[in-house]
Amino acid sequence: MNISDQAFTVNCRTYSPPARPIAVICIDGCADEYITESIAQGYMPRLEAMVKKGYRGMVRGALPSFTNVNNSAIVTGVPPSVTGICGNFFLNPDTGEEVMMNSPEFRRCDTLLNAAADAGRNVAFITAKEKLRTVLGDGIVERGGIVFSSEKVNEATKDTHGVDKAEEIIGKPQPEIYSGDASIYVLEAGAALAEQGKADFLYLSLTDYMQHKFAPHELESLNFHQQLDAQIGRLLDAGCIVAATADHGMNAKNDAQGKPKVIYVESLLKQQFGPEGIRVICPITDPYVVHHGALGSLVMVHLDEPSRKEEMIDFLYQQEGITEVYGRNLAALKLELAPDRVGDICVLSGRDVVVGKTEADHDLSVLQGGLRSHGGRYEEMVPLLLSEPLNEEYRKIASADPRNFDVFAFACNAGA
Amino acid sequence: MNISDQAFTVNCRTYSPPARPIAVICIDGCADEYITESIAQGYMPRLEAMVKKGYRGMVRGALPSFTNVNNSAIVTGVPPSVTGICGNFFLNPDTGEEVMMNSPEFRRCDTLLNAAADAGRNVAFITAKEKLRTVLGDGIVERGGIVFSSEKVNEATKDTHGVDKAEEIIGKPQPEIYSGDASIYVLEAGAALAEQGKADFLYLSLTDYMQHKFAPHELESLNFHQQLDAQIGRLLDAGCIVAATADHGMNAKNDAQGKPKVIYVESLLKQQFGPEGIRVICPITDPYVVHHGALGSLVMVHLDEPSRKEEMIDFLYQQEGITEVYGRNLAALKLELAPDRVGDICVLSGRDVVVGKTEADHDLSVLQGGLRSHGGRYEEMVPLLLSEPLNEEYRKIASADPRNFDVFAFACNAGA
Repeated sequence: MNISDQAFTVNCRTYSPPARPIAVICIDGCADEYITESIAQGYMPRLEAMVKKGYRGMVRGALPSFTNVNNSAIVTGVPPSVTGICGNFFLNPDTGEEVMMNSPEFRRCDTLLNAAADAGRNVAFITAKEKLRTVLGDGIVERGGIVFSSEKVNEATKDTHGVDKAEEIIGKPQPEIYSGDASIYVLEAGAALAEQGKADFLYLSLTDYMQHKFAPHELESLNFHQQLDAQIGRLLDAGCIVAATADHGMNAKNDAQGKPKVIYVESLLKQQFGPEGIRVICPITDPYVVHHGALGSLVMVHLDEPSRKEEMIDFLYQQEGITEVYGRNLAALKLELAPDRVGDICVLSGRDVVVGKTEADHDLSVLQGGLRSHGGRYEEMVPLLLSEPLNEEYRKIASADPRNFDVFAFACNAGA
Repeated sequence: MNISDQAFTVNCRTYSPPARPIAVICIDGCADEYITESIAQGYMPRLEAMVKKGYRGMVRGALPSFTNVNNSAIVTGVPPSVTGICGNFFLNPDTGEEVMMNSPEFRRCDTLLNAAADAGRNVAFITAKEKLRTVLGDGIVERGGIVFSSEKVNEATKDTHGVDKAEEIIGKPQPEIYSGDASIYVLEAGAALAEQGKADFLYLSLTDYMQHKFAPHELESLNFHQQLDAQIGRLLDAGCIVAATADHGMNAKNDAQGKPKVIYVESLLKQQFGPEGIRVICPITDPYVVHHGALGSLVMVHLDEPSRKEEMIDFLYQQEGITEVYGRNLAALKLELAPDRVGDICVLSGRDVVVGKTEADHDLSVLQGGLRSHGGRYEEMVPLLLSEPLNEEYRKIASADPRNFDVFAFACNAGA
């Protein structure tokens, strides 16, 4: 198969991929400790060898450190202030309704996947979660590419997903979404497509079910990473440039007795300021509640009367466990968000603390084994892993303030 | 030699060391990437084996992420709000003078080193920088322990430092302070004292000269870590429980062309609000200017007229690169500081940005090869390394919000 090495420009950034297959992986919820511990205990020999020869460093993700926000940034190469995707879930100011950001019209710029396809690349975008396919996969099939999720791989057809009988290509039936297999399957699909020459520009985006459930040193996590490693090996063996990063990190959000540390922000504000005109949105909310019970480390507060904002900010800052509190404009400026997509107040919590709405809004019974979650500043820094050593330009970029949404630029432009 | 296993309590925390020598190392400026890269490239085989059997995880340091602040927290087991050491350098509100916090009277609680000595331990506190000996070493010699710095090891006498002819014990002459050897020497001293049975409760605090000068992947850094590794091996071979952490991380503070990114806060404020009554203190300031040119990622602003504070906070927040801005009380609350030891405004900057006073106050010519520094939120998270696997209690503590100033608790209490 002839691979295009035509450069392309999208969202003011230029990508110059060599004529080699390129596989970019978003390891959902991959705090650096998962990689460190899995390598240390001997569970990721292929990745260990890959980064010894190539590159491993830390990059800064987009805030809030949620899945949709960061996957949107990664496939466009630009921050949420440009993409407009500032959460999984938001209060639409036009309608007053709380809505899931699960369709591409919420996105304010095109993806680099479409630009790569226009430049002659055979694009494949495989996700674990169906929601990401619907938000970010538009335009690819029309350009001859392939898009499907492991969650709904059985629905894939040539017309709608760019491929028929995907399960046969992969050689395995559809996995369970609440499993490590949902992620492994994405990599197996990517490896199969690369091996069979059906794609040469791949974005493979996993799910963080395992990271929400298990800490880095737990055997379940180590076994999961061993399976990831085998698939990374397949991609390398298929000749791919492999680049991996994460959408966000992951921290335990419990006290030293293992009990979740939750601040119910709507309850707290109503108790202090009266029950009227205060609405808290948890932008981590998505259909996968078993992961986190819709509890993360950032919430938005919407007020009927925004003039009450300042006293609420002061009040929220006094609460232990709350680390950052911003009004809308400052949130947009400091967190790189679109001002019309954030609340009147934006609230972030600490490494071991989550923020929620009210006790009744969150079902903690789904959280067997305690809560592990993300969304705040302490899940902002994530690893960047690349199979190639960096050229001089990218060595400099890597030692400034590289971002996780630079991962395609690293994959295309950073090699010697 | 008989080693005491008597428990002791200090600053409301109890330490129950087993009857084994204990060596706690503060690897100054050790961002986790230094450990990751040095292990990956095969330069730290002893540490690699140590943490495979024992524990490696991330802990949160004290802010500002400076040396004196965190060493004070580590040797007391409590945050800066209790120790009172909130910088290397501060504006004394009693005198109006800018002073170095280089004597123990600035410290508001006793060290656990003295408590360990009172419980029958043979304590040795070896530092690279003389300043740490003077701030934190009081009381040890009177209790039969040993305290000296590699910077001034030649001044050590039995009466003043608890040991005569220290250079002979170590078998090497005094090293140069602006060198990696200044750190290696501290570990060599600790290993010699442990091997010779002259100490069984050691705190070994290094200097970050090498980390300020070299990134994790640079050969100079790798060679330095190889030397660290050999000394860690000696401590392990001497039967020590070895625990290591860092006082702070380290980031490059340059743009992608390698030019330092500096915001001169005093100049900026005077330009906007007039020249009178504004004074910026850089609490990173210490005698070792070659390290960082007194440029870090946190400064304090002192105002003759504190009522101007709010408009200045709003103004500072608008500046790109400035990430957090607090008034005194909020700074004390959110950063765990002593309110009488901070400015009217406390300013933090981003991963790749430092804050300073005025251009004339900082000599950038000392910074060959660009600026690497610390002091802010992006240098808060550091590794914790322990030679023992964690017991159940400490597994829970490690998965909540462990701190770098828990390192002695981990060393004494976390073993099975």
